[in-house]
Amino acid sequence: MRHYKLAFLGFGNVGQALARLLLSKRQELVERQGITFQVVGVATSRHGSAISIEGLNLEQALALAESGSDLGQLTTQPVRDNFEFVTACGADILFENTPVNYASGQPAIQHLQAALTNGMHAITANKGPVVHAYRDLTKLAHQHGRKFFFESTVMDGAPIFSLFRTALPGATLLAFRGVLNSTTNMILSRMEMGERFEDAVRYTQQIGIAETDPSGDIDGWDAAIKVAALVNVLMEIPLKPAQVDRTGIREITTADIQSARAKGQRYKLVCSAVRSGDEIQARVAPELVPQSSPLFAVEGTSSMITFETDVLGPLSILEENPGPDTTAYGLFADFLNAVRDA
Amino acid sequence: MRHYKLAFLGFGNVGQALARLLLSKRQELVERQGITFQVVGVATSRHGSAISIEGLNLEQALALAESGSDLGQLTTQPVRDNFEFVTACGADILFENTPVNYASGQPAIQHLQAALTNGMHAITANKGPVVHAYRDLTKLAHQHGRKFFFESTVMDGAPIFSLFRTALPGATLLAFRGVLNSTTNMILSRMEMGERFEDAVRYTQQIGIAETDPSGDIDGWDAAIKVAALVNVLMEIPLKPAQVDRTGIREITTADIQSARAKGQRYKLVCSAVRSGDEIQARVAPELVPQSSPLFAVEGTSSMITFETDVLGPLSILEENPGPDTTAYGLFADFLNAVRDA
Repeated sequence: MRHYKLAFLGFGNVGQALARLLLSKRQELVERQGITFQVVGVATSRHGSAISIEGLNLEQALALAESGSDLGQLTTQPVRDNFEFVTACGADILFENTPVNYASGQPAIQHLQAALTNGMHAITANKGPVVHAYRDLTKLAHQHGRKFFFESTVMDGAPIFSLFRTALPGATLLAFRGVLNSTTNMILSRMEMGERFEDAVRYTQQIGIAETDPSGDIDGWDAAIKVAALVNVLMEIPLKPAQVDRTGIREITTADIQSARAKGQRYKLVCSAVRSGDEIQARVAPELVPQSSPLFAVEGTSSMITFETDVLGPLSILEENPGPDTTAYGLFADFLNAVRDA
Repeated sequence: MRHYKLAFLGFGNVGQALARLLLSKRQELVERQGITFQVVGVATSRHGSAISIEGLNLEQALALAESGSDLGQLTTQPVRDNFEFVTACGADILFENTPVNYASGQPAIQHLQAALTNGMHAITANKGPVVHAYRDLTKLAHQHGRKFFFESTVMDGAPIFSLFRTALPGATLLAFRGVLNSTTNMILSRMEMGERFEDAVRYTQQIGIAETDPSGDIDGWDAAIKVAALVNVLMEIPLKPAQVDRTGIREITTADIQSARAKGQRYKLVCSAVRSGDEIQARVAPELVPQSSPLFAVEGTSSMITFETDVLGPLSILEENPGPDTTAYGLFADFLNAVRDA
């Protein structure tokens, strides 16, 4: 039996979904994997933080977070800031789920560095550190005999990075092409049903998949960041989001979409990258997709990616019906993968 | 640097494609994985066999096989039969690629047992041993500290078994649904273009994907065996191919297909299994698939599977343009996965 101490830095929708998943899988982890765990720290942005070397009651922490109560009441030990939280919590695994900073990846990068130098596996659903510090964090993890994993940053919990890390040994990725941004795909799907752009945007905000300022999705930034993450990790070529040739969906009218539909085609915001030697052509742009394309059936919040390698024909992964629970599974899988064979 | 001795039992299209892949990846294996290899045995069904503890020249063996010449000329050591081949070759890895026996899985099961008890990793593209002896061979492998891997038995080299083994930890498979037989999918695709059933069957024989007796594909046996393999391995429930509720594609007429096409639908031979507790409902049958289904775009020899788990929304894998090279990659990946972290 192996025992792990876990800490949550960030305890919003995804962190709470991860807590529920861990609780529901607690018995199964013991029986099937020989793993037990306790939670030694939970830090929130607006509802306080708690650290306890003896372990916190996760059910209780979850109930407090769900009701918007202060988590500080769980312990008497004060926590001044997130860095003190990371260095003082004594965890084996840090789940970093603070809000993403597209421009610099900070302060998440520093949280993850602190976790790794303190001997923790560093796991995040935060794209910033992947596009801004993938090499440095991976190197740091290696130096400390720990893992830096981030499965949930692209296509939620669907196994993309772990597919190449473990299931496609000896394969070289030459190109990829996919639909990776849920919000724009949902907007385009709604516009096909006759909705105006502004109303479709409002709908995605109502169901909680778009931000109050939806420009990160609509202008293709989120998609470009995912392209950069895939290129950095799977092709091992440094690429910043700003280097992705990027066009959003603002220029597409309902009339464009209806006329495509009449011809049996659909608009999709397509993410792609093609490698030639050490050069990368990376792109995010709306494309007309015919019925014969696998991307045609990618509906609403679903996402899909097709990989071209040197060893297989086109290999595609389709994920349907994602949400905080599936993002949480990506973090959970990263935890189990980090401690595998330990 | 780690060195491995390889043996090929069966050296037809797939075995030869694997040999070419190994030769093309030789330098990359040294540089990226720290792996060197030599081939200590090659056994064919009709063109003799060769064993050499000092190593055979793989280029030469390949040239002889490609020209239909006898491989016995490579060495002076006689090899009486396949069992002597396995026990005498002294390999670390056996690639078992003899013809499949759907009824019993023999003699491939015995080849793999001999390999494992002689301390080799046992790797096969042969479905027989998976459906007839998965548990026993896996147990035997475990007892000898070796691996029994068979990625290429379902969807060629696409990572299906390794996905669950390594990339989806802690997930429970509840159901799956897919198009897994290339020959019937190609026949149905050709019939959509107006070809008669008999002509479409002849076409699949001409391009080398259907057997002289195509009933194994047409009557759904190959698909049923793949369903049984997936259920045995991924759901850990023993299921024989004969227990799969099986309907082939003989009853579908060109008129049926044209009328479906007119309604924007396609016939697909759908493989499925649904688990409830320890009970399995497994099925192979033609189904009408609408445009909105991911299966709609599965064209010609492509295949696709959708997995329902307890932790993610539907997750699908689509493989396009398979062939002997992609089956060979599955065997190559099994080799690298078997020796990972060794």
